[in-house]
Amino acid sequence: MGKVKLRTEKLKKEIINIFQKFGLSNKHSLISANALINAELVGAYGHGLSRLKMYCDRISKKLINPKPKIKIKKISQSISHIDADDSIGFVAADVAIKKAIQNAKKTGIGLVAVKNSGHYGLSGYYAEQAVKKNLITMIYTNAPPAIAPHGALKSLFGTNPICFGTPTSSKIPFILDTSISMINRGKIRVAARNNKKIPDGVALDRFGKPTTNAKKALKGVQLPISSFRGSGLAWMVDILSGVLTGGNHAGRVKDPFDDFTGPQNIGHLFITFKTNLFVKDFNKRIKDNIKKVKRLPKIKGIKEIMYPGQNKYQRFKLNSKKEIKISEITKRDLENLKN
Amino acid sequence: MGKVKLRTEKLKKEIINIFQKFGLSNKHSLISANALINAELVGAYGHGLSRLKMYCDRISKKLINPKPKIKIKKISQSISHIDADDSIGFVAADVAIKKAIQNAKKTGIGLVAVKNSGHYGLSGYYAEQAVKKNLITMIYTNAPPAIAPHGALKSLFGTNPICFGTPTSSKIPFILDTSISMINRGKIRVAARNNKKIPDGVALDRFGKPTTNAKKALKGVQLPISSFRGSGLAWMVDILSGVLTGGNHAGRVKDPFDDFTGPQNIGHLFITFKTNLFVKDFNKRIKDNIKKVKRLPKIKGIKEIMYPGQNKYQRFKLNSKKEIKISEITKRDLENLKN
Repeated sequence: MGKVKLRTEKLKKEIINIFQKFGLSNKHSLISANALINAELVGAYGHGLSRLKMYCDRISKKLINPKPKIKIKKISQSISHIDADDSIGFVAADVAIKKAIQNAKKTGIGLVAVKNSGHYGLSGYYAEQAVKKNLITMIYTNAPPAIAPHGALKSLFGTNPICFGTPTSSKIPFILDTSISMINRGKIRVAARNNKKIPDGVALDRFGKPTTNAKKALKGVQLPISSFRGSGLAWMVDILSGVLTGGNHAGRVKDPFDDFTGPQNIGHLFITFKTNLFVKDFNKRIKDNIKKVKRLPKIKGIKEIMYPGQNKYQRFKLNSKKEIKISEITKRDLENLKN
Repeated sequence: MGKVKLRTEKLKKEIINIFQKFGLSNKHSLISANALINAELVGAYGHGLSRLKMYCDRISKKLINPKPKIKIKKISQSISHIDADDSIGFVAADVAIKKAIQNAKKTGIGLVAVKNSGHYGLSGYYAEQAVKKNLITMIYTNAPPAIAPHGALKSLFGTNPICFGTPTSSKIPFILDTSISMINRGKIRVAARNNKKIPDGVALDRFGKPTTNAKKALKGVQLPISSFRGSGLAWMVDILSGVLTGGNHAGRVKDPFDDFTGPQNIGHLFITFKTNLFVKDFNKRIKDNIKKVKRLPKIKGIKEIMYPGQNKYQRFKLNSKKEIKISEITKRDLENLKN
């Protein structure tokens, strides 16, 4: 094992130890540590170690249940409903995607709804699991209020990502994992922690004025993509992952960093299906599809047209060769949580 | 029956007669006429009568099959694959949504893929059918090249709408039906037919320069919403409705107005599921969700926060009381097609 990999393993072990200290089982600690490390490696720092303290705080305050009794209710061979019993989101999502994979393998299609869960990190991380099993997947989750519905002066929808994954016949999966906000909320959090500015045009302060101050943006409103269209898509995600599943919705998902008045009760929805339901040569077709797009004439300065997930995969490969950078604040968090 | 309704009925009868003259069965003529009239009534003129001549031209040139043998293949109780045999898109979509409703009613979820279809008008029109049967639905279809993938200089993806519908417990359904382009291609066509300008920032001409000239825009590239995100969503729709179903994809769907070298072979994907799979009180929950959003403080000048589909419903009510306006060009089309 290389030096870097050893250090990453050591870091992971530290995180596992911390989660165990806070009462999570060995298995759940490993699942959670893997998700956090993965977020760092794909460069989604807002979903990585910067959240570790938050998770531990919520466990301490009994808002995340370290020993959940997760119940899987079978609705049909294809459909399952999971009550995650306020587990850490990573574990709920791990159970759910595995069930969705199982159902799709059995019947061609899987539909799995989750309630009483929490923030689970990146939807794309779970999509990858399904894609590795040669399934197409669509994943929805809601999140604490960040985006104002079109016409409103107050945020209510979360950044509510839309996630879609498909096998590509190559080792790099097609994973679209896009929030409906102009910018990822996690990125604003990281900027706020490090006193960095955020881009213009992505957020308003609490008075409705444009701001590049990350802290002011967190107290204000994030702007959705494409105005009423983005607002409609965020609403769709709130209905699919909240109203339908039994999870919180309509702005009731609590901010995990700021609101300790109760568990989050986030809902998720996982849809999975086989690639060969309707065509025998899906692999050939998707390969041809991607090749056709890649061969288009390119805008000046663009070397390659990338499909969603390709950039992240390359960052993962690159970052896996480097030591994970830990900010001073996170270093302090790690020390404090260990002791 | 009021005067207006009589005139609308008379217009519909004319369209039915035209389709019958071109060889469609009575039933298929009625389905197609209903879809065209509905597009006019909801104000989606780009999907209405302005397309009638195009459909007839394609039938004459044997690119739309007026007497299709539509085959429905049962994959499972939930899943069906439809080969539309180059039928007019309206008919293929009508068969498909009815099958998707049937499958969902039987098993909780329906997944129906269609190949060898054509342009079917508005996804929302089919979504309404599922919602009326108390189902949630997601509908995807691809379309002729109009949008350049992120980084490319040439269009390849269609305007590829994303459609989501859900019952609301009120008579007005929640129907999100949003194309991934800044502007609906049908609107550009109508502008081109009437020598009107299109808004700034929605399209480039074929040299890659911004244009407000509708005719130049049709020969150029439409811009996707939110750059790489919109491009990714359009790609997702191409995979779901084309690669997966056996339909054309990767830019091979022919422009119905300009390209008479073969049938379109458009693919569609319909997903339907019951609202009460995971919660007993879905109606109460969705009602509460919508109420909560509507009660938010509003931006100055906004009287009501509308959910997707509300505007269209109100336009439908309003337009149903007025005579359908027919442009001079369409009037000429109607006369020519009748004789």
